Amino acid sequence: MRKSARTLATELVRLFTAAGKTVSTAESCTGGLIAKLITDIPGSSAVLSGGCVSYTNEVKRKVLGVDPKVIETDTEVSEACAKEMADGARRLFGTDLAISTTGYAGPGGGTAENPVGTVYLGIACASGTDCIRISAPSGATRSQVRLLAAKTALDAAIRTAEVKFDKKG
Amino acid sequence: MRKSARTLATELVRLFTAAGKTVSTAESCTGGLIAKLITDIPGSSAVLSGGCVSYTNEVKRKVLGVDPKVIETDTEVSEACAKEMADGARRLFGTDLAISTTGYAGPGGGTAENPVGTVYLGIACASGTDCIRISAPSGATRSQVRLLAAKTALDAAIRTAEVKFDKKG
Repeated sequence: MRKSARTLATELVRLFTAAGKTVSTAESCTGGLIAKLITDIPGSSAVLSGGCVSYTNEVKRKVLGVDPKVIETDTEVSEACAKEMADGARRLFGTDLAISTTGYAGPGGGTAENPVGTVYLGIACASGTDCIRISAPSGATRSQVRLLAAKTALDAAIRTAEVKFDKKG
Repeated sequence: MRKSARTLATELVRLFTAAGKTVSTAESCTGGLIAKLITDIPGSSAVLSGGCVSYTNEVKRKVLGVDPKVIETDTEVSEACAKEMADGARRLFGTDLAISTTGYAGPGGGTAENPVGTVYLGIACASGTDCIRISAPSGATRSQVRLLAAKTALDAAIRTAEVKFDKKG
């Protein structure tokens, strides 16, 4: 993605402000980076209501309301978990849209199916919840994986908002 | 503070890991920056359970359990609110220690009593909750205010842990 994280966050704040819509976050592997990028932008308090850094599975369950069975069967790094995290943030913070991240930023962790660099992004809004799976290039550092996930999430939120808010979704 | 944010976050993760203790955050004006700095460090999942970005007063009340009367009488940028936010995060995430921030990062906002650059930091642990009030140099940018608040919070958490965890506090 050629746009900087700051440019994407600025676009998101501008778009949501113009539409009168709100956003929230549920971050596992990005650990607060997305909320930090949004709140770097002056005026972001008009659009970001809140965010949850859910670094443990207990927080995913208790605070975001992720179904324990999802974590048992699909693990916390999965499409189902990312979607439930985004749904949970949208409910908890009462926002129009919510973004979630769960994945392996490294250097530890990862599985054969989901190696280090794999991140699932959830995007929840009134009309439904989508998921994007991203794979960072092999050899990407922890910092690079996290930044790629955050930028992709900001971009996905912008594109979702462009489609859904026009349709009153 | 001459130490970098990364150095402080590394020290915090090392100290809490060695002590077998956990930390959580409740961030208003820093908006996720503290959680981001901690989770930049590999191995931070052993110590950071969760964090809440409570950018609106509604999130401060509903998610962190801040007493509405505190916000009415003292406003959300106050020692009382910072302490209740830290207590709320410690309760919500079930951690040994919690850090909170609430203040005016600018460029907008601020009052005669608490001009832009004023941030209240709460530090909650089992033996009680403390508050530090910081004032960034006048003319400090939003980014500078946020970084100063985050670094001071990390440093305060480290110093509190050094004292309290030795005493099993």
